[in-house]
Amino acid sequence: MFKHTRKLQYNAKPDRPDPLMARRFQESLGGQWGEMTGMMSYLAQGWASTGDEKYKDLLLDTGTEEIAHVEMISTMIAYLLEDAPMYAKEEAIKKDPALAAVVGGMDPEAAIVHGMTAGLTNPNGAAWTGAYTTSSGNLVADMRFNVVRESEARLQVSRLYYMTEDEGVRDMLKFLLARETQHQLQFMKAQEELEEKYGVIVPGDMKEIEHEKYTHVLMNFSDGEGSKEFEGQVAKDGQKFTYQENPLAEGGIPKVKPADKHLHNHQG
Amino acid sequence: MFKHTRKLQYNAKPDRPDPLMARRFQESLGGQWGEMTGMMSYLAQGWASTGDEKYKDLLLDTGTEEIAHVEMISTMIAYLLEDAPMYAKEEAIKKDPALAAVVGGMDPEAAIVHGMTAGLTNPNGAAWTGAYTTSSGNLVADMRFNVVRESEARLQVSRLYYMTEDEGVRDMLKFLLARETQHQLQFMKAQEELEEKYGVIVPGDMKEIEHEKYTHVLMNFSDGEGSKEFEGQVAKDGQKFTYQENPLAEGGIPKVKPADKHLHNHQG
Amino acid sequence: MFKHTRKLQYNAKPDRPDPLMARRFQESLGGQWGEMTGMMSYLAQGWASTGDEKYKDLLLDTGTEEIAHVEMISTMIAYLLEDAPMYAKEEAIKKDPALAAVVGGMDPEAAIVHGMTAGLTNPNGAAWTGAYTTSSGNLVADMRFNVVRESEARLQVSRLYYMTEDEGVRDMLKFLLARETQHQLQFMKAQEELEEKYGVIVPGDMKEIEHEKYTHVLMNFSDGEGSKEFEGQVAKDGQKFTYQENPLAEGGIPKVKPADKHLHNHQG
Amino acid sequence: MFKHTRKLQYNAKPDRPDPLMARRFQESLGGQWGEMTGMMSYLAQGWASTGDEKYKDLLLDTGTEEIAHVEMISTMIAYLLEDAPMYAKEEAIKKDPALAAVVGGMDPEAAIVHGMTAGLTNPNGAAWTGAYTTSSGNLVADMRFNVVRESEARLQVSRLYYMTEDEGVRDMLKFLLARETQHQLQFMKAQEELEEKYGVIVPGDMKEIEHEKYTHVLMNFSDGEGSKEFEGQVAKDGQKFTYQENPLAEGGIPKVKPADKHLHNHQG
Amino acid sequence: MFKHTRKLQYNAKPDRPDPLMARRFQESLGGQWGEMTGMMSYLAQGWASTGDEKYKDLLLDTGTEEIAHVEMISTMIAYLLEDAPMYAKEEAIKKDPALAAVVGGMDPEAAIVHGMTAGLTNPNGAAWTGAYTTSSGNLVADMRFNVVRESEARLQVSRLYYMTEDEGVRDMLKFLLARETQHQLQFMKAQEELEEKYGVIVPGDMKEIEHEKYTHVLMNFSDGEGSKEFEGQVAKDGQKFTYQENPLAEGGIPKVKPADKHLHNHQG
Amino acid sequence: MFKHTRKLQYNAKPDRPDPLMARRFQESLGGQWGEMTGMMSYLAQGWASTGDEKYKDLLLDTGTEEIAHVEMISTMIAYLLEDAPMYAKEEAIKKDPALAAVVGGMDPEAAIVHGMTAGLTNPNGAAWTGAYTTSSGNLVADMRFNVVRESEARLQVSRLYYMTEDEGVRDMLKFLLARETQHQLQFMKAQEELEEKYGVIVPGDMKEIEHEKYTHVLMNFSDGEGSKEFEGQVAKDGQKFTYQENPLAEGGIPKVKPADKHLHNHQG
Repeated sequence: MFKHTRKLQYNAKPDRPDPLMARRFQESLGGQWGEMTGMMSYLAQGWASTGDEKYKDLLLDTGTEEIAHVEMISTMIAYLLEDAPMYAKEEAIKKDPALAAVVGGMDPEAAIVHGMTAGLTNPNGAAWTGAYTTSSGNLVADMRFNVVRESEARLQVSRLYYMTEDEGVRDMLKFLLARETQHQLQFMKAQEELEEKYGVIVPGDMKEIEHEKYTHVLMNFSDGEGSKEFEGQVAKDGQKFTYQENPLAEGGIPKVKPADKHLHNHQG
Repeated sequence: MFKHTRKLQYNAKPDRPDPLMARRFQESLGGQWGEMTGMMSYLAQGWASTGDEKYKDLLLDTGTEEIAHVEMISTMIAYLLEDAPMYAKEEAIKKDPALAAVVGGMDPEAAIVHGMTAGLTNPNGAAWTGAYTTSSGNLVADMRFNVVRESEARLQVSRLYYMTEDEGVRDMLKFLLARETQHQLQFMKAQEELEEKYGVIVPGDMKEIEHEKYTHVLMNFSDGEGSKEFEGQVAKDGQKFTYQENPLAEGGIPKVKPADKHLHNHQG
Repeated sequence: MFKHTRKLQYNAKPDRPDPLMARRFQESLGGQWGEMTGMMSYLAQGWASTGDEKYKDLLLDTGTEEIAHVEMISTMIAYLLEDAPMYAKEEAIKKDPALAAVVGGMDPEAAIVHGMTAGLTNPNGAAWTGAYTTSSGNLVADMRFNVVRESEARLQVSRLYYMTEDEGVRDMLKFLLARETQHQLQFMKAQEELEEKYGVIVPGDMKEIEHEKYTHVLMNFSDGEGSKEFEGQVAKDGQKFTYQENPLAEGGIPKVKPADKHLHNHQG
Repeated sequence: MFKHTRKLQYNAKPDRPDPLMARRFQESLGGQWGEMTGMMSYLAQGWASTGDEKYKDLLLDTGTEEIAHVEMISTMIAYLLEDAPMYAKEEAIKKDPALAAVVGGMDPEAAIVHGMTAGLTNPNGAAWTGAYTTSSGNLVADMRFNVVRESEARLQVSRLYYMTEDEGVRDMLKFLLARETQHQLQFMKAQEELEEKYGVIVPGDMKEIEHEKYTHVLMNFSDGEGSKEFEGQVAKDGQKFTYQENPLAEGGIPKVKPADKHLHNHQG
Repeated sequence: MFKHTRKLQYNAKPDRPDPLMARRFQESLGGQWGEMTGMMSYLAQGWASTGDEKYKDLLLDTGTEEIAHVEMISTMIAYLLEDAPMYAKEEAIKKDPALAAVVGGMDPEAAIVHGMTAGLTNPNGAAWTGAYTTSSGNLVADMRFNVVRESEARLQVSRLYYMTEDEGVRDMLKFLLARETQHQLQFMKAQEELEEKYGVIVPGDMKEIEHEKYTHVLMNFSDGEGSKEFEGQVAKDGQKFTYQENPLAEGGIPKVKPADKHLHNHQG
Repeated sequence: MFKHTRKLQYNAKPDRPDPLMARRFQESLGGQWGEMTGMMSYLAQGWASTGDEKYKDLLLDTGTEEIAHVEMISTMIAYLLEDAPMYAKEEAIKKDPALAAVVGGMDPEAAIVHGMTAGLTNPNGAAWTGAYTTSSGNLVADMRFNVVRESEARLQVSRLYYMTEDEGVRDMLKFLLARETQHQLQFMKAQEELEEKYGVIVPGDMKEIEHEKYTHVLMNFSDGEGSKEFEGQVAKDGQKFTYQENPLAEGGIPKVKPADKHLHNHQG
């Protein structure tokens, strides 16, 4: 169960409106690697967890924090959309290329659909989808996913940083950068502990079953020679990589039976 | 540019048909973490790469291999759908619960839409989407993503393994397990090299900018006590985690201006 | 069965082209609350109805009218796209910020995909989807949905009104505003009649079954004090709202069993 | 900002596993009108609100409660999936039609993708999408939407009720039914207050602008005679409905100009 | 503008209910090539057409007919769902494998979401989307698309035919088969006339511009030898196909510049 | 199995960057009729084929070529995005309307998500989806689909041609135009051969079953008179079209039974 306080976790107030920046922030809200994806992945993983309380709690703490980040970014977007020139007249645009850029580049749905507030979409208006989240039941794999979520999110926040000189916006970004550092580090730590217990290969208990012959071979499917550079290096499980210049097609040519005639698969 | 050989990379032939297993294999073909996601992520990352040929080539080699995996699984699905009982009569079903399970559980679109061949979907018929892929231009983040792709994929293949006793199916799964071991290891190796160069936090050049105060704090947003166990442990960047029992809401209560009256935001 | 006349239900002709306005109109065509959503929801509800002919006919009449609205807006968009500057040269853009706004803000797919005619999308190019529609079989719920459809649609049309000064465009908008007034009123009337028969709570026959203790409690999950203002007020079913300052977590901490080991849910 | 307690808001524990029921509950979790849609709509509306604290707080309280409902249903699904027969052998299925129904009817992705825990999808595996939510900035329209959300959700929960005889499951459903009664009533109350202030037509300030002639006319587009029954009745705004037996096509036949020849619109 | 009659275009009444068949019919309603796709493609093309009235009218006539087909199939689905065993108890299922197949195989959303009526989805519950439709402004291309729509739809209807022995269902299918014959033929005729005017290659006015050298070459990218069989045959434009055993990679190795450092594209 | 060469199939290098053109090219990469759709449709059809090697090989050759086209367009987009002004300051925009158009019109996700490289989307950011592809098992229908794919794709490429004067871009477009000529011709040839064998109506073996009375009737559902012009003309199967001025509604008014009361379908 959850409780809410009206206060934000951190400042989310720009010095002045900027509808183009509002649109860009939609990536951090409703994009593939935005805060919604973090929030729902971590909560779902936490709720799915039946194991060590340590990881379950870490996931639920961080998932709960991410709701606050969704809140902050939604707030930031609404501030950035204050006074947005949705009703600008042609004469005004004709005189001001900066206004032209805003009219051309702002999200028309911000006004038409949301009354100048945030939507649950990315900057191109694609609705956020649960297909961005991951909760597999396997915490080694999922902790790795969480590190990626925080890595891609921090990368995007870093790119946003240089797209504005507004100190208010940058203040919030500096906070998000920091939290995404923490989250990368904490999930890496959890990942390492879990790898130590279950092995570096996910999942850790199929080693006896897989075809061993193909587990450490760099296969060359191109005329590039880069992959070869990994030959002889030591993989994380202690074994060395080998290199196959010309991988064979070992599987033969398939010969599936023609389908039932009632399917009308006319095929020559 | 690409060339194709009719021979498969490895065997993809079951000992006998099994339409329920065919449906399950759609996850490995067109699911979130299936082979299509690997193929298109690695190729896109490879094409996007402007840096070290070593990583670019590794990506393109592996992306090219994944096309062959999509091919193998498509072939396997078609074999598994041979003689599928799409036209079973009620009398036959009444006599055979195993037939009932197949009629109830097979994908009706396999027959109606695809004439008993594979579709570009997951087992629930959701079409594969480019939104599953990642190509950010930042190879540290993307190598991490690739390790996740191979981890989640290998986990799913491992789960499939016990859902069948067909030796032909298992033979192919053993091969896929092995390749996903190799791909996990090779992308980990690349990830490590890149982290050594650019730092473990993605991206590696924003350290001076983020609010340092929040970069190593485990924040407790729940009454769980698991996160506290990480307190004092050494993070991957060498610093120690601290723990905040009661994180503050530092951001104040937001006060966005009411919107332009022409937006008709009647709000009480 | 349906018949078509080439004449439009009402004027749909702007005084002059305006590609930015064309893009905005896509919301009313293919957006979440656009005419397609009205058309397909009302038709589906009408076809699904097995009850009173009065409501079935109202739904089918209005659904049929909405096809004509889809037609009108498609026509308006094509007119607004006449002479759109898709092939404008850089020199021309350099001289005219209004042209810059159009080049930046118009939908590139209008030209590339549709040859300067309407698409079945919203202004951000998201394809219209049946997931926007509702047809539940329960007419009380669905009439409420229909009132919402007309409310959100009329709100959006009102927002569009001030984004143009073109008298032709405004003439059509004035007509749509009026029809959406009628449709709000008629669906409200139907809703009221149905509520009178079945009760104001949907569905009306589960009262004996629900846990009565929780049916009129405003639960406070925040430090805001607004919800408290409803305390003691009379709800539409005649009972009074009570207020719970600190709702309890009555459900205990869940303890789901660890999953089958073949699922490889490594969880610490 | 949010805080989490590990305790659930209410019991979410079935008496025994039931994988078919688990699949059905996905509707209440990740379907169009499920708890995710309530949660994200109310939170977004609350964050977007710049008006009366009373409504803003009501929205945020209820949105926060819905996170707890998402949590409860996720938990219920995991319990219902305990011991699910994903690895059932054909011989066992052959002997037991009830097992056949489960094998045919359970969601294969529950095992393959989620390790027997909940997914962020509906029962047919369609990922939850932000396109289900509404936050328009206009609270009259959005309160109506919220009443619909609670109506459709309570309808679905009522349908689920008779699909099981498990007392544990029913206990949770009785709680949800009750909360959805409260939420319908509270949003109706807010809706009424707002309508009193702004008028029953959304939005309330376009009356002078719309074409008055069409605002109260039931138009007959079919050979059904049901709509006529509303003729002469008093609409919620106090005016009477009129009826038009044969609505005219007043708009003429459109004549859009042929497109630029570089678009290659070859049209006869 | 449209008018509706309550009578269906043709019989849509099965002899007895069949929930599995109901689910399969969703393909013809809301699948990629179902009636919705025909209806919305033809109407959109008709509305977009600015050329010869002959084709415009053909499109609008057929689009209008397709609304009636959507109506018929929705009706058929509702009939097939009469008495569907959504509330079947385990004991009953245990005794009847045919019931097990139905419980496992019917669409759970038919009951939970739609109260045993049709949904706007395919059999796997994927919502119909405007992304299935095509309206390009170029009638040669679009007439070809329309022929495909009717071909794939008729193929699917043919597959459905053998999945039932219900004479009522088959009667409707025989009608749909016939109309899809007519629609294939009429669109082929229109296509031929338009090809005669504009050329067989779409679009017909870029011949002078394309690189002539590559316009009639069968390129061999595999070790298969099938493509070679077309060598020397006469193409529809009168020229002969040539065959290239080993197509060259003429484009060189790309060398894109590294991106701006503020994008943090760390790439080795 | 596949092999890759680093060299492109053809030149894909513009003379200078152009971020607006980069965005437009996304249509040819990840749009409904883009190269991804060709690639995955042809490969899937080839893998699904169990018939004449000639068609199977043609499909696989062309599918393999299309991977190279995806590669070329991805490369072109990255070149066009070199030096894109994502970090342009307001002062610079104020001085340059051409810059304003670029800032407003370029895809913000190109920078934020992809680090100035291609994404797997169309110009409006909608992710490519497998729902665009077709592989039905019936080669007559699918060859027709393939002709459409090449027609719509060539149409779009032709529209792109006049949106740029860059000779490097045009050089690649001239190559694509040529290949899409070849692909149209080759698939038409295959289509004709298959039609000769199986008949012009798809599928070719249901003639005895359909209701013959409706197979050659142009039905008039409008007041347009265009369809009548086809009356008496000879259809591709040798029969003549007839014309029905007033098609009857032969199906009667449907009367579906009210649903089970536990579904709560309150309908008046």
